[in-house]
Amino acid sequence: MTFKASDSLAEQIARHLADRIVRGELRPGERIQEQKVTQALDVSRGSVREALLILERRHLVVILPRRGAHVSDLDAHHVRSLCTLMAELYILLGNAVAQGWRTEADLAPFTALRQALARSAQADDIQAFVDHSFAVMRAAYPFADNPYLRETVENLQPAMNRNYYRALEQRKAVMADYLALFDGLLAAVRQRDTAGIRQQLDAYGQLSCQLVLAALGQP
Amino acid sequence: MTFKASDSLAEQIARHLADRIVRGELRPGERIQEQKVTQALDVSRGSVREALLILERRHLVVILPRRGAHVSDLDAHHVRSLCTLMAELYILLGNAVAQGWRTEADLAPFTALRQALARSAQADDIQAFVDHSFAVMRAAYPFADNPYLRETVENLQPAMNRNYYRALEQRKAVMADYLALFDGLLAAVRQRDTAGIRQQLDAYGQLSCQLVLAALGQP
Repeated sequence: MTFKASDSLAEQIARHLADRIVRGELRPGERIQEQKVTQALDVSRGSVREALLILERRHLVVILPRRGAHVSDLDAHHVRSLCTLMAELYILLGNAVAQGWRTEADLAPFTALRQALARSAQADDIQAFVDHSFAVMRAAYPFADNPYLRETVENLQPAMNRNYYRALEQRKAVMADYLALFDGLLAAVRQRDTAGIRQQLDAYGQLSCQLVLAALGQP
Repeated sequence: MTFKASDSLAEQIARHLADRIVRGELRPGERIQEQKVTQALDVSRGSVREALLILERRHLVVILPRRGAHVSDLDAHHVRSLCTLMAELYILLGNAVAQGWRTEADLAPFTALRQALARSAQADDIQAFVDHSFAVMRAAYPFADNPYLRETVENLQPAMNRNYYRALEQRKAVMADYLALFDGLLAAVRQRDTAGIRQQLDAYGQLSCQLVLAALGQP
């Protein structure tokens, strides 16, 4: 594991464990034993406990008194709940861009990301596609200019990432559907059409939900 | 400080510090030194570090690499941002109740809380008024049935509480305005009137924002 010096040790351990959860190496419901992580990474128990709290904030781990830390569940109810909330938060971001953009230069980051997403889809590069998708949302933060909204979305993002990555792996063709939704969204933002923004992002939430549920249903 | 045995030590320390932040004994921007807390409460440094991470999740503390933990800011931008996001999350909860209620019994918790709020306002009991206000939101959780929405609101609640408590202390009369808004909200929920729900909760967000900003502007 390679660590960035700028992050705290706990943050680095959290990122390492998050990667393993997102890739599915640590399964939903699986117990995470502090002592095993401590030994495997040769770090202090305190740092591991802090890392688990960071992962709990990011909805990837649940810590129960006297029962320790477990990878959070990924059942149908959790998937639907997450997609529903994320769609609503994305709608807030979308509306903020719609209300805030003034010149074409304000929209340039989004049109550039549209091209990057298309290239990633063409190359069947899922990781890049997922990364660019979240870059879209991050490009919207300055328009909303709301630190609480930003933190909330950032904390939910790893759990969404976990769903998204797994599902796209199984159905790469669906990247074309996401691209079509993104085109619709960009058009709605350009026209400051809030009903259209809600429609596109609700559809995004539903597509993500169906995709992940289908992936969960497969062996 | 009295501790509930069911909570982890870190959670108990977090609650103690949260109370001090909400009451304003620890000021916005103030440094929280791990060692001082460790000594004052006679607890381990590890537990204090964990408590600070819990408070960061609850938006009361900011932890910066190599600069330690500080009480989070409470400037006009933070207040407006928090009230805006909270109003949107309350709208999601309000819509869930509007869509989900079937019989009068489903609404009974809310009419009971309406009475409790009125009694607290009559008695000028701010703490009870604030507690009952958050009980309203918690009574809506089962209708939304969304663990991510619930966690997000719970994590934002202490920061909202901090604003709310301070502001009401200075202008107790405004409790009557909140009661009027709650009556309008309850009527809109009863009629499954989503536009009315948004209108009442936007007004709630704006009232809270103005109230807190006025309180901040005072010496």
